[in-house]
Amino acid sequence: MRIDVLTLFPDMFQGPLSESIIKRARDKQIVDIHFHNIRDYSTDKHNRVDDYPFGGGAGMVMQIEPIATLIDKLKSERPYDHIIYMTPDGERLAQRRVNTLSLAGNLMILCGHYKGVDHRIREHYITCEISIGDYVLTGGELAAAVLIDSVVRLIPGVLSDETSALTDSFQDNLLSPPVYTRPAEYNGWRVPDILLSGHQANIDKWREEQAHERTLKLRPDLLGKSERS
Amino acid sequence: MRIDVLTLFPDMFQGPLSESIIKRARDKQIVDIHFHNIRDYSTDKHNRVDDYPFGGGAGMVMQIEPIATLIDKLKSERPYDHIIYMTPDGERLAQRRVNTLSLAGNLMILCGHYKGVDHRIREHYITCEISIGDYVLTGGELAAAVLIDSVVRLIPGVLSDETSALTDSFQDNLLSPPVYTRPAEYNGWRVPDILLSGHQANIDKWREEQAHERTLKLRPDLLGKSERS
Repeated sequence: MRIDVLTLFPDMFQGPLSESIIKRARDKQIVDIHFHNIRDYSTDKHNRVDDYPFGGGAGMVMQIEPIATLIDKLKSERPYDHIIYMTPDGERLAQRRVNTLSLAGNLMILCGHYKGVDHRIREHYITCEISIGDYVLTGGELAAAVLIDSVVRLIPGVLSDETSALTDSFQDNLLSPPVYTRPAEYNGWRVPDILLSGHQANIDKWREEQAHERTLKLRPDLLGKSERS
Repeated sequence: MRIDVLTLFPDMFQGPLSESIIKRARDKQIVDIHFHNIRDYSTDKHNRVDDYPFGGGAGMVMQIEPIATLIDKLKSERPYDHIIYMTPDGERLAQRRVNTLSLAGNLMILCGHYKGVDHRIREHYITCEISIGDYVLTGGELAAAVLIDSVVRLIPGVLSDETSALTDSFQDNLLSPPVYTRPAEYNGWRVPDILLSGHQANIDKWREEQAHERTLKLRPDLLGKSERS
């Protein structure tokens, strides 16, 4: 998979996508992530990329020209499955969409900043608008990092133990059961006896019950739509 | 505000919280963010911090002891408003919760990794479990960065133009209206005439209509619960 990220702050990605599992995926060339600084495509002699909004109001708006030039350039080099814009009014990201995106070949991700990008970019270039949740961030960079992390970990060969992703929360519309590890007792707090019993069938049954119980208590909405499609 | 982050991967935070608006907030000492490497609190001679789950299964579990030692130490130094665990089965983050957290004095945020932390940590130490959305990440680090970013930008003095946050999506259960900036025409695509008209009352009315229209089209659920409480 190839991912092109269009941003005013490429340095924001240095930590999140250069550690742990995503670092390994990049080192193994399972995913190839390129960062493009939108400022490099400014046509203004002061390198401006934003301006005041037409009609007044607070905040700055990212101009159409540098972004359009950069997207046109990338599109001329290869086809893209999706040109994604990270925005709080986009489709809310959920695990099902993450699963689908993990099958893509080339993705382009545009990060807005300030009050967002000139709306004409969204109308004429963007094929998919995604929100990571109902809250506002200082920019689309962290949202893009979240999207990339969630998608890349699902590509075969990235997680060291592939069955691990299958038991994640949401993959079957259930939350995960509680997990425990050594020591069996700490500060007087013991792990549930069943997990130490060695009876695998009972343990599996307990975990399934716990998953249902926790989902019912914490996220009943997931059970309401839990019929398999 | 002081934020203590407990993580196995402190380097993951270097980019996201060292740029743009959050960097400025830290430079101005409006927020003081400390990173603690859980591995420094391992009691194992190989510096282990995780182990196989009791009862078998894929993935590793973060052990109780190093985390408990670190939390106990921090709690002995100062009181915390919340000890937060980032987890996909936590309360889904929404702007209202972000607003509340922006008023806190001291926050502690624990990032899980692998299959998560020993459940006894959640039962005995955590006061608040937060999910940034219905998808799974390689760890809690990006989720914590998202939470910190959303909260810190609301602290007075952080955004250069404070009225900017008030017109964000979600602050009044409405999505933002479209924004445009110079040039007024690009590639034959013109900005809406009304925005160039100079009639501020008409512009405000148009924006309000657009906000309603977009919310109705993209997120009708927000309007369904839009009565002010």
